[in-house]
Amino acid sequence: MNLVLVEAPEVSPESSVTLTGNRAQHVRQVLRVVPGDTIRIGIVDGPAGTGVVRSLDESSVTLGCDFAGETPPRPRVDLLLAVPRPKVLNRLWAQLAAMGVGRIILTNAEKVERPYFDTHVLAEAHYRPLLIEGLQQARDTRLPVVSIHRRFRVLVEDELAALSDARVRLVADPSGRGSIRDAAQETPPAARVLAAIGPEGGWNTFELSLLNAHGFTTVGLGERTLRSDTACLALLALIHDALRR
Amino acid sequence: MNLVLVEAPEVSPESSVTLTGNRAQHVRQVLRVVPGDTIRIGIVDGPAGTGVVRSLDESSVTLGCDFAGETPPRPRVDLLLAVPRPKVLNRLWAQLAAMGVGRIILTNAEKVERPYFDTHVLAEAHYRPLLIEGLQQARDTRLPVVSIHRRFRVLVEDELAALSDARVRLVADPSGRGSIRDAAQETPPAARVLAAIGPEGGWNTFELSLLNAHGFTTVGLGERTLRSDTACLALLALIHDALRR
Repeated sequence: MNLVLVEAPEVSPESSVTLTGNRAQHVRQVLRVVPGDTIRIGIVDGPAGTGVVRSLDESSVTLGCDFAGETPPRPRVDLLLAVPRPKVLNRLWAQLAAMGVGRIILTNAEKVERPYFDTHVLAEAHYRPLLIEGLQQARDTRLPVVSIHRRFRVLVEDELAALSDARVRLVADPSGRGSIRDAAQETPPAARVLAAIGPEGGWNTFELSLLNAHGFTTVGLGERTLRSDTACLALLALIHDALRR
Repeated sequence: MNLVLVEAPEVSPESSVTLTGNRAQHVRQVLRVVPGDTIRIGIVDGPAGTGVVRSLDESSVTLGCDFAGETPPRPRVDLLLAVPRPKVLNRLWAQLAAMGVGRIILTNAEKVERPYFDTHVLAEAHYRPLLIEGLQQARDTRLPVVSIHRRFRVLVEDELAALSDARVRLVADPSGRGSIRDAAQETPPAARVLAAIGPEGGWNTFELSLLNAHGFTTVGLGERTLRSDTACLALLALIHDALRR
């Protein structure tokens, strides 16, 4: 935990915060603070800043905070992801938030199995703490916005434009000859990228054509076939690196 | 499983293979083969080829194989990794093999906790099947060579040159200003890269200096602090992409 995140209502009008539960335990036992110490603290979807430890006991830590900074910009990549197996998705939440994504748009596809939609892994109460864990790791405050779409065609044709303002759209597929880096480097300054990753068995022909018809350039991830979580992380690493240029 | 891997002693002199256990189950229930079907099959650290299903029953599948190809080259990246938490390392084995690494050199460092060395996750009987799972995902046959080193200084000063023939050495650290891509692109054609990733708390000053003194260029992974498994995958994605150029 490189940044402790709190929700806006947890901050008192005098900018004090009392941590309890896991966060208090982490601050006491891992950071090993004593009164007077300063830690990094941020507000979910708000600014980051610092907190000075005023008091602590066995179950809580009270901090006087200064949230002087600006709210960081949303990460420049949105992800359109065919719902992976629950076990894989479960591992992915924190890592996606740590790598930096603005939106996570989860979609159906032919090769997404129906039961994948009926899992607690897709419940906000389950994934929100995992996303926050990833933000705390990466020192970000911007919580990825998650939406779940059972109708792929309706999503791509009617909803996607309103969901993501990305100017560049990429879809990863083994048929892709284009390089992710080259494609991502075409992104205008400060503009954002929407990257699509298919299910384990890949997009079908209809799905890939529909994405291409809606502005997605097909890019390849090399010769190795990766599991969808590994592929997501590789794709995000390459796009963020290209955007840093 | 995009390639079924077998061990060399499993192949009969007439090039037939009888799969049992998980592999037979996968071939029967996921690939749903019938006699006469062809599947991709490879020998660990040997060539890949094809197998024609000759017969199958509830517990086994017998294939007539043709291993005509060459053994693929070892992936061009070796990894020097400070031993991560067992839970993190456990998740990482298959993903590292899938991304492609020639060697996984696990090392001690100041911020590696002692109990991390006394875990079954470091036992070959535990990690070998996970590495093979990753190879089967990525359609590779070259098993990463794993070694475990409790003395960082001895490793770097005396052993590393014999372990890895990489011509370019990189160490990831938040202090690194250099880009991974630029550094990896300096690699001569067909030469290999050795990439070092520190423990959760980072390399200490001595460790980083020792690596630098032994030819490691410090590179950065961007502003976000990543968990060591996420950092490994991001680093491998960037280096492999740079080497493809």
